[in-house]
Amino acid sequence: MKILIVNGPNLNRLGSRDNSHYGNQTLDDIQSDLIEKFSKNKFTFFQSNVEGELVNIIQSAQDNYDALIINPGGYAHTSVAIRDAIDDLSIPAIEVHLSNLAKREDFRQSLVTASACDGYISGFKGSSYTAAVYILEMNNYKS
Amino acid sequence: MKILIVNGPNLNRLGSRDNSHYGNQTLDDIQSDLIEKFSKNKFTFFQSNVEGELVNIIQSAQDNYDALIINPGGYAHTSVAIRDAIDDLSIPAIEVHLSNLAKREDFRQSLVTASACDGYISGFKGSSYTAAVYILEMNNYKS
Amino acid sequence: MKILIVNGPNLNRLGSRDNSHYGNQTLDDIQSDLIEKFSKNKFTFFQSNVEGELVNIIQSAQDNYDALIINPGGYAHTSVAIRDAIDDLSIPAIEVHLSNLAKREDFRQSLVTASACDGYISGFKGSSYTAAVYILEMNNYKS
Amino acid sequence: MKILIVNGPNLNRLGSRDNSHYGNQTLDDIQSDLIEKFSKNKFTFFQSNVEGELVNIIQSAQDNYDALIINPGGYAHTSVAIRDAIDDLSIPAIEVHLSNLAKREDFRQSLVTASACDGYISGFKGSSYTAAVYILEMNNYKS
Amino acid sequence: MKILIVNGPNLNRLGSRDNSHYGNQTLDDIQSDLIEKFSKNKFTFFQSNVEGELVNIIQSAQDNYDALIINPGGYAHTSVAIRDAIDDLSIPAIEVHLSNLAKREDFRQSLVTASACDGYISGFKGSSYTAAVYILEMNNYKS
Amino acid sequence: MKILIVNGPNLNRLGSRDNSHYGNQTLDDIQSDLIEKFSKNKFTFFQSNVEGELVNIIQSAQDNYDALIINPGGYAHTSVAIRDAIDDLSIPAIEVHLSNLAKREDFRQSLVTASACDGYISGFKGSSYTAAVYILEMNNYKS
Amino acid sequence: MKILIVNGPNLNRLGSRDNSHYGNQTLDDIQSDLIEKFSKNKFTFFQSNVEGELVNIIQSAQDNYDALIINPGGYAHTSVAIRDAIDDLSIPAIEVHLSNLAKREDFRQSLVTASACDGYISGFKGSSYTAAVYILEMNNYKS
Amino acid sequence: MKILIVNGPNLNRLGSRDNSHYGNQTLDDIQSDLIEKFSKNKFTFFQSNVEGELVNIIQSAQDNYDALIINPGGYAHTSVAIRDAIDDLSIPAIEVHLSNLAKREDFRQSLVTASACDGYISGFKGSSYTAAVYILEMNNYKS
Amino acid sequence: MKILIVNGPNLNRLGSRDNSHYGNQTLDDIQSDLIEKFSKNKFTFFQSNVEGELVNIIQSAQDNYDALIINPGGYAHTSVAIRDAIDDLSIPAIEVHLSNLAKREDFRQSLVTASACDGYISGFKGSSYTAAVYILEMNNYKS
Amino acid sequence: MKILIVNGPNLNRLGSRDNSHYGNQTLDDIQSDLIEKFSKNKFTFFQSNVEGELVNIIQSAQDNYDALIINPGGYAHTSVAIRDAIDDLSIPAIEVHLSNLAKREDFRQSLVTASACDGYISGFKGSSYTAAVYILEMNNYKS
Amino acid sequence: MKILIVNGPNLNRLGSRDNSHYGNQTLDDIQSDLIEKFSKNKFTFFQSNVEGELVNIIQSAQDNYDALIINPGGYAHTSVAIRDAIDDLSIPAIEVHLSNLAKREDFRQSLVTASACDGYISGFKGSSYTAAVYILEMNNYKS
Amino acid sequence: MKILIVNGPNLNRLGSRDNSHYGNQTLDDIQSDLIEKFSKNKFTFFQSNVEGELVNIIQSAQDNYDALIINPGGYAHTSVAIRDAIDDLSIPAIEVHLSNLAKREDFRQSLVTASACDGYISGFKGSSYTAAVYILEMNNYKS
Repeated sequence: MKILIVNGPNLNRLGSRDNSHYGNQTLDDIQSDLIEKFSKNKFTFFQSNVEGELVNIIQSAQDNYDALIINPGGYAHTSVAIRDAIDDLSIPAIEVHLSNLAKREDFRQSLVTASACDGYISGFKGSSYTAAVYILEMNNYKS
Repeated sequence: MKILIVNGPNLNRLGSRDNSHYGNQTLDDIQSDLIEKFSKNKFTFFQSNVEGELVNIIQSAQDNYDALIINPGGYAHTSVAIRDAIDDLSIPAIEVHLSNLAKREDFRQSLVTASACDGYISGFKGSSYTAAVYILEMNNYKS
Repeated sequence: MKILIVNGPNLNRLGSRDNSHYGNQTLDDIQSDLIEKFSKNKFTFFQSNVEGELVNIIQSAQDNYDALIINPGGYAHTSVAIRDAIDDLSIPAIEVHLSNLAKREDFRQSLVTASACDGYISGFKGSSYTAAVYILEMNNYKS
Repeated sequence: MKILIVNGPNLNRLGSRDNSHYGNQTLDDIQSDLIEKFSKNKFTFFQSNVEGELVNIIQSAQDNYDALIINPGGYAHTSVAIRDAIDDLSIPAIEVHLSNLAKREDFRQSLVTASACDGYISGFKGSSYTAAVYILEMNNYKS
Repeated sequence: MKILIVNGPNLNRLGSRDNSHYGNQTLDDIQSDLIEKFSKNKFTFFQSNVEGELVNIIQSAQDNYDALIINPGGYAHTSVAIRDAIDDLSIPAIEVHLSNLAKREDFRQSLVTASACDGYISGFKGSSYTAAVYILEMNNYKS
Repeated sequence: MKILIVNGPNLNRLGSRDNSHYGNQTLDDIQSDLIEKFSKNKFTFFQSNVEGELVNIIQSAQDNYDALIINPGGYAHTSVAIRDAIDDLSIPAIEVHLSNLAKREDFRQSLVTASACDGYISGFKGSSYTAAVYILEMNNYKS
Repeated sequence: MKILIVNGPNLNRLGSRDNSHYGNQTLDDIQSDLIEKFSKNKFTFFQSNVEGELVNIIQSAQDNYDALIINPGGYAHTSVAIRDAIDDLSIPAIEVHLSNLAKREDFRQSLVTASACDGYISGFKGSSYTAAVYILEMNNYKS
Repeated sequence: MKILIVNGPNLNRLGSRDNSHYGNQTLDDIQSDLIEKFSKNKFTFFQSNVEGELVNIIQSAQDNYDALIINPGGYAHTSVAIRDAIDDLSIPAIEVHLSNLAKREDFRQSLVTASACDGYISGFKGSSYTAAVYILEMNNYKS
Repeated sequence: MKILIVNGPNLNRLGSRDNSHYGNQTLDDIQSDLIEKFSKNKFTFFQSNVEGELVNIIQSAQDNYDALIINPGGYAHTSVAIRDAIDDLSIPAIEVHLSNLAKREDFRQSLVTASACDGYISGFKGSSYTAAVYILEMNNYKS
Repeated sequence: MKILIVNGPNLNRLGSRDNSHYGNQTLDDIQSDLIEKFSKNKFTFFQSNVEGELVNIIQSAQDNYDALIINPGGYAHTSVAIRDAIDDLSIPAIEVHLSNLAKREDFRQSLVTASACDGYISGFKGSSYTAAVYILEMNNYKS
Repeated sequence: MKILIVNGPNLNRLGSRDNSHYGNQTLDDIQSDLIEKFSKNKFTFFQSNVEGELVNIIQSAQDNYDALIINPGGYAHTSVAIRDAIDDLSIPAIEVHLSNLAKREDFRQSLVTASACDGYISGFKGSSYTAAVYILEMNNYKS
Repeated sequence: MKILIVNGPNLNRLGSRDNSHYGNQTLDDIQSDLIEKFSKNKFTFFQSNVEGELVNIIQSAQDNYDALIINPGGYAHTSVAIRDAIDDLSIPAIEVHLSNLAKREDFRQSLVTASACDGYISGFKGSSYTAAVYILEMNNYKS
């Protein structure tokens, strides 16, 4: 399975960001973990702080990947543009968050992009990503 | 690991409920799957339509189990009582939902009980449960 | 026709409750009236103050009754659990209220459970129940 | 009993309007049904798309009829004028709706005129009218 | 093409109304323009300040016209009755406004009637009408 | 001074309406009072329950009267059409209400039409009208 | 008649304040006008910028005056304390405003103190006061 | 005096729950305190996590006790059923809370059940109960 | 114990104010009661209608008293200034209200000042004050 | 006339996106149509998924083009930055949308950018663009 | 330059108030700093906890000072009276806050008084005052 | 001190933008002013209309600068991404705005990014920047 893993703004700063919310793994740590744990799959990693570049890469996913995992960071709560790009895909799409959004500020309670995904996972630090791939591998939630 | 899996109202009806949201597995199917996939763990399953009985069983979890997985069903959006019971626990607690709540009615957008859990997983039918156990087994999201 | 008539919290107190809103019939009076007026049908009456027990009996209705009439009392405005249980039924379901909810407190204006019924009747004291059975007997609102 | 039956905007179009919400009876069908089923009563039927004409006819009801049944159509959700006219009556007044408003758009959830009626019936197509007359005939919900 | 052009309250006052919002053409000017510019079509013009008369004329459109262009004036923001009448049509329906509603008072931001039209045009004074006919002539937005 | 006095829905019923809110004068009583108290002026009285007819008469005021006094009744809270018609006038316009709106239901707190008048008077029964004429006679609030 | 006229914050600045809203009369001008126009009455004038001093003087009105006219200025929109003090009176109480509040900022739309008065007059500059005394003199709005 | 003391969900966990909010007394400690301090009264203690069982016991209070003290726990903010049951009582009813609700989460600010009690006490840990009995003993707040 | 008892606006009018809400004791009666019942303590009583004077006296409490009991009257719902002054204290602070606020107008539901107190008591007329002193004497709710 | 046509996020995907909302033309099809239909004008087409690049190009419009037509896609509902850039222009600016926004999700009802344009057209698929150019050519809506 | 520096409620308590928000300078420290740093100017300092006294001093500023710097404390969020008094000034007016309001409670997010000032500075402890004088000295933000 | 000064969308257009809000200085003018006035410091200036590029530069500030001054322009009100990037910094961060936001549109009242800064300055045109540097130089607001 070819899986595209997209990370939004500030996720390039993992490791140095507030550990209680985001854990102490860097984005590289998380990505190495995935490669190691799911060696049969082929991963492509992409990170950008620019909303439109995230739209660009998501648009490219339809023809080049079997599944999308996305952590839209702060854009999760406001971006109609990213939401519409995901909505356009027919491959599986899973949204992940490192922190438990339900415990955080009011402005993080509105989930704009998740409404275009198949589902979402929130609160397990790096394990949110791992669980997403695990779900894709089981390959039965759509049946 | 001894894991308590608690299911709230109407989840005893899985299989006959609207498949597009809830999948076509019965609750028994889901539970058999878990036992088979994670044979090293010991599972206790509990289902009730009664809010207070869910509070009772959650209260008992602290001294008898290593982790809690809960699908509070409709109580997820209104029950301060269940929320407070979970908040009282120090063992890991994960909320799961079969359907993607972000795609559904307004009254399912408020997450009262999830704010007392470590995290939540929504939208993957029976795989939401499986992913929750998988995360517990990895045992590293709290580090 | 086998009709299940479910009454929620505090309806066991009819007769002694505020007459201007609820009339001066007891629940027994109302039920005797129904049996007398619609003698060709077979009625089962159930009352509970416990939300989950109401969910239980509603779940049982699908296989054992031809129609459901429910007065969810105070749960009408908050219970997603009862709403989901009714939504699962394919037999006719009618919600009734003794008082005219449109004339009462703000917290009684939101109708959660009625949105899963075929329709609702509000404001005619015991006659709300009678009219519900009358509608079921005419048996043509779904055609 | 002399009963005035008032229908608001677009109800003259029944039969051709969306059947899933409004049923396939025309307004004439509904009215014939009432005359046939309740032959002891005398019915007057009035329909208008004009809010003020509805106010006019309602004002005339006090001195000329024993009861009012009204389907205010779209004005049910906005018309303070119709609400005040009904509020002025001392004869019984029942609001009816063909569709189950609780299942429909947000702008149909606010019930302005129903708060001035004795009660309301919603969701049973033409049977909403029949049930209203039935309730008037029983003549005991005010006792 | 036979086109019905319906104008709501206060539009008979164009020319003398606030020019910055509504332009300095009278309603006659606008209508003459249309006849001149689109001489192949047959126009019927109707204006009324009465909500119910607007409902009446809209109801008549289905059988007598090929398309409806409507400027509901102030009723655009409140009239469920007009909305439902338009919703009942299967011929094309376009809502037009002289002023740019997005620049005006809060109470003009809610678009009740436009949600039942095919689309709407706002802000171009008399040219809003002209553009609406132009779109109907192109006759390809539904394909 | 030629003064047009416009009354909206249900004001033709004064005298029989709830006295605590509206006083026990009929509309005729109020009008006779005005003629007697302000004999130097010429009054024209108009009442209608139809929103659009109120718009019609208001439109006619500009060229035929020196001032407008209007009690829009229930339309005061919802009618953008009446508001726009008043806004179009350059003669003085005063809104009056018999009851003290600030003491009544929530749906009477929003003042749509008053925002297009010079001012408004609320709560003095028939004296609200008298005071309005008195203010017009003083003729100095615009200086 | 002994009339207490109470003015709240910033009304001591009339004349120099924004004339389009407040007129060009000073508070002295307004008071001289009242004395001249209604020479049979005895007026006491009080102005303070201090909310509590306004409460003090209002409390004293019950035993010393026949009526209260109050312009609470900015406190009209927030002061529960002034509202409760007025509510305690049984003598007539009229609220006046120089400007038409319905035309101004959102924070001036909520009328806290007016809900404890008999009625209110808004928008006629100094004539709002004159009309209030005129209404008191007619002495018939309570009958 | 026979006093019924009802405790809702999670109050059986006092002592182990978050001490900063709830104090370090167990429910037994609180109850022993009451018996010791008010030895002339007869107390009945009831705790349940089940909303409906709380309704049951409250319904029984009318005929068997002289007063009700209730800590509805999390149901204080949502339960119309408990509210209606209390509202049905004519004996004194006092609501108590261990923590100061005004300092806590938004979802604890709405007081549904307290609106049916005579009054409420919030924030004094176990002393909230003691003060409630003290108030009942003084027996003069209703005079 | 030296206790400062502060009363806000309109509480000097107790006895003559609406008895159903506030009881028939005067403020003097309440204060005499306290002195009699708790003769070991030393009370200082202060009442003012002026928000700022209440702030002044609260600021003085820290160095001169062992505890504060405050009934902020109408300022309870709006005064950030009083809230901040109480928040600055480290001595115990209890808010009391004579009436049950949960039963009253919407504008009395927001508790600004109580969020800075240790707790609050509402609904027991003069007994609200007595209970507050009783709680201070027990002196154990902070342990 | 030199016209700049700016398209926002996901509009490069037209043709493959949901046809019921967006039609089956590609962006190229729409642009070819414009060139063909309005051959006297010179068009520049720009599409980007990046909000800031849209701001860049809009800023450049003032000095290089005679008019702007913009479809901001999902940014229409959130982008203050694009709104401010348009607001800075003195050339004509028209906003277009393919789908009828009034029929779609709540988050598409707020029009941030349109409030800085001269007007907007919504719901006519590719014809929305054509109509915009048609309006620019008529060149009289500003007179 | 003669500068009036006005401080509202609780600012006389600086130094002992919560240091994390307000810093550890007393109001005297802040004032000495200003005198020392800007020795060419003449400062008048005023502090009061009374809203109306703040209105009084602000009203006096127009004729006696060249500029106003005000920290309205808790009144910043509610006082229409202070807002109107500032709005009446034509001399420069700057609002300052010690703490960063954007980081604090919801009830501190609404800025009523700042909307009548030229600008505001929030979050820099005593330096907020210093920066305000610095800005006044530069004397070019109005050009 | 090395200071990074970041400007968001449309600030490259200063000078030609609406002068009443933004002043008549260009961004170059403002920057020259800073260099001249604070010659001991080293400034880096950055402007972009792209949200993500602003995130990029902010992320780089931690290791390369002693302080950040940011005018996020329109992103101030919506960008969670920029807010999170600033929140990640431990160097001082000050938000500045040219216009007084408290006087402007509703959509400019929500301050998302300022909640992650130390403080903010709004309303002094170019002097907002100067004051920010002045505050950084004083270097004592954190002590």
